[in-house]
Amino acid sequence: MEEFSALPLVVLAEKFAALPGIGMKTAQRLAYAVMEMPEDQVLEFSDAIRNAKHQIHDCPVCQNLTEQEVCSICSNAKRDRGLVCVVEGPKDVSAIERTHEYHGVYHVLHGLISPLDGVTADHLRVAQLLQRIQEGGIRELIMATNPSVEGEATAMYLSRLCKPLGVKVTRLAFGLPVGGVIEYTDEVTLYRALSNRSEM
Amino acid sequence: MEEFSALPLVVLAEKFAALPGIGMKTAQRLAYAVMEMPEDQVLEFSDAIRNAKHQIHDCPVCQNLTEQEVCSICSNAKRDRGLVCVVEGPKDVSAIERTHEYHGVYHVLHGLISPLDGVTADHLRVAQLLQRIQEGGIRELIMATNPSVEGEATAMYLSRLCKPLGVKVTRLAFGLPVGGVIEYTDEVTLYRALSNRSEM
Repeated sequence: MEEFSALPLVVLAEKFAALPGIGMKTAQRLAYAVMEMPEDQVLEFSDAIRNAKHQIHDCPVCQNLTEQEVCSICSNAKRDRGLVCVVEGPKDVSAIERTHEYHGVYHVLHGLISPLDGVTADHLRVAQLLQRIQEGGIRELIMATNPSVEGEATAMYLSRLCKPLGVKVTRLAFGLPVGGVIEYTDEVTLYRALSNRSEM
Repeated sequence: MEEFSALPLVVLAEKFAALPGIGMKTAQRLAYAVMEMPEDQVLEFSDAIRNAKHQIHDCPVCQNLTEQEVCSICSNAKRDRGLVCVVEGPKDVSAIERTHEYHGVYHVLHGLISPLDGVTADHLRVAQLLQRIQEGGIRELIMATNPSVEGEATAMYLSRLCKPLGVKVTRLAFGLPVGGVIEYTDEVTLYRALSNRSEM
């Protein structure tokens, strides 16, 4: 946005443009939209951003985002705690929950092993996963990482690490289109991938 | 976003989804992106939204958005105050400024006359425009509203209202593609439309 626009509007547009998938043109439209919103809605929007960051932390059990002490999935007595689905991020938990067919719990790694980007197992929540296994009660880990180079490498790494601890390690079936992204996969395909999981 | 997600994240996603052109899927991605931003960036984003709304008001002369007492265009001594470009909204000022060929000033209507939507001249900044003309010094008004039904009707209405006050009233040339939107028109086309403006 150019220097003849009001500065706070330029600043706001730049904040929007810093979000993923938002270009400068869209960012300007959004900034103007905020200007046209009633005062109370603007404050609610501003507060929602602060609150999301301040009130949400990682669940001490599964590492997923939650505003409760322990997340609603880990604290749900109906979920099977012996079955743990290992995912890259919170978005993948949402995607798998949308199948309404998975009744186990999760472990969120918060990333994938990627030597080229300098991300090793130490940067992920691997130690927490090993601790959960050592505490006992887990009979199966489902590796639900994306079918990408990093996703496969991470699944392979964790499989080798966890199998000696006496848990069964399975992988999502390749019902997923190779090169695809879990987050955008439709519920039926994702459910098939869950049902047809194979031991690794 | 489903009930198993953290509530503040759901609230934030709903705020994003309330913005124009942002669907629920994109809103969720943006909410997660905010979660992954460092604390200081989150606060800056939140503040930018409040500041845009609180620090910006309408310029008392041209009615454009500004954080200064009088906007930078109206207070620029190099601009020709005898030439006033009448536009629907602040976005159109930005679009015309990008041609770098217009050296007059503006008048922002903040809407177009649209009887079907219940918007009459009383809802727009028409009285302020008439006052500027009566204060003297304006020799030409360029009607730079969109080539839509409402845009044409508003230009026609203002033309009939202002001509008797002794100002020349011109209309942007139809270099603009009919049915198009000023905001998205490229600089060259917009400059042609400015240069070839015709008296109405």
